[in-house]
Amino acid sequence: VSEEVLSVIPPLTEKVYVGKEVGSEARADIPSLMIQSARQGKRVVRLKGGDPLIFGRGGEEMLALAQAGIEFEVVSGVSALSSVPAAAGIPVTCRGIASEIIVRSGHCLTQGPLEDAGDEPVTGATTGSPITYIYFMAAGRLAGIVEDLRREGLPPSTPVAMIQKGTLPDQQVLAGNLENIVELAEVQGVETPALFVAGEVVRFFYIQELLPALEETVRQGE
Amino acid sequence: VSEEVLSVIPPLTEKVYVGKEVGSEARADIPSLMIQSARQGKRVVRLKGGDPLIFGRGGEEMLALAQAGIEFEVVSGVSALSSVPAAAGIPVTCRGIASEIIVRSGHCLTQGPLEDAGDEPVTGATTGSPITYIYFMAAGRLAGIVEDLRREGLPPSTPVAMIQKGTLPDQQVLAGNLENIVELAEVQGVETPALFVAGEVVRFFYIQELLPALEETVRQGE
Repeated sequence: VSEEVLSVIPPLTEKVYVGKEVGSEARADIPSLMIQSARQGKRVVRLKGGDPLIFGRGGEEMLALAQAGIEFEVVSGVSALSSVPAAAGIPVTCRGIASEIIVRSGHCLTQGPLEDAGDEPVTGATTGSPITYIYFMAAGRLAGIVEDLRREGLPPSTPVAMIQKGTLPDQQVLAGNLENIVELAEVQGVETPALFVAGEVVRFFYIQELLPALEETVRQGE
Repeated sequence: VSEEVLSVIPPLTEKVYVGKEVGSEARADIPSLMIQSARQGKRVVRLKGGDPLIFGRGGEEMLALAQAGIEFEVVSGVSALSSVPAAAGIPVTCRGIASEIIVRSGHCLTQGPLEDAGDEPVTGATTGSPITYIYFMAAGRLAGIVEDLRREGLPPSTPVAMIQKGTLPDQQVLAGNLENIVELAEVQGVETPALFVAGEVVRFFYIQELLPALEETVRQGE
């Protein structure tokens, strides 16, 4: 949660930091803290970045509160799922380009036989439309993600982007294709957090680069 | 866009309604309107509900603006993808329950052979994790969606929910499984807009119903 957001919390509100401590893997037992505070008669806000129910552990917290008989309300947020690609100029769906999205966490990779991929974009089984693939928590797992997508039949030429620190002032985008992205990442490095996007919609990223040039053309034409 | 949102627009700002007229399928040519206004030196805000880049046609508008050499910025929104399930108490991902999401529009159904489905939830090809399926614009297409999911191998017992007018005061949720949802919808009717969710996460819907009872138990125990 950014300083800008924290600054609008009323000064008398008790604040408890429940994120990971720097250099530690330990995490506070958030559901227990919430239940304990609620039972003391306090109104508790569990504040977090992104959307709590898209790879945000909100489901576990809901379950714990329900089991403790504590009423709650979920306020949805703007998920990195669309906001991070948007910050790189990439729409996750677009008529005629992609009308199916597959969203995964980078944490769940398994192995399987690597088959030869064709040259055609993979289309959804029932929709027949090209798919946009989005991986959360993709930093440090890029090689495995690429291998899995190749295994699923995505051609090496599939446009991909690794969006690092998405929406932040120091956002960096590494763009390429399934064939060269691992090498590009080795040369340039990947910073966390990173979101990985694969599919035809990634071509929109290059529109951003063209924009100043286009604008110049229009100005000259006037 | 709701009245509450419209009411915060400064009174001197020119407002142009570009949605569908009631009883008409005609839609304004939004990109042309934006380009025309921008070329008159105006600052244009294209305001819409949800997220513009998840089945929101934002990609087409970006492309048109880029081709016209007009600079733009996309401000992401809270997508129905997570907010509508959340309003029914359903997280779209949850550790151990679903770590993959497949999102589709109800508009893109094709045909294929119907295979016998097993009794196990379908898991992602590479993640091995159960999948949450979400369909936008699902009203009037429920039978086709159910048939497609059965065709993909989802068992008849898969929990599903049809969330109508999600997040609004008159929200209605029709919950059941792949086997009975079409019949339930025929009896009770389906109102638009509707979002369809299939997968183990839909079981969370029933927690909401249990909450008042749970709370009562806790009160009695005190």
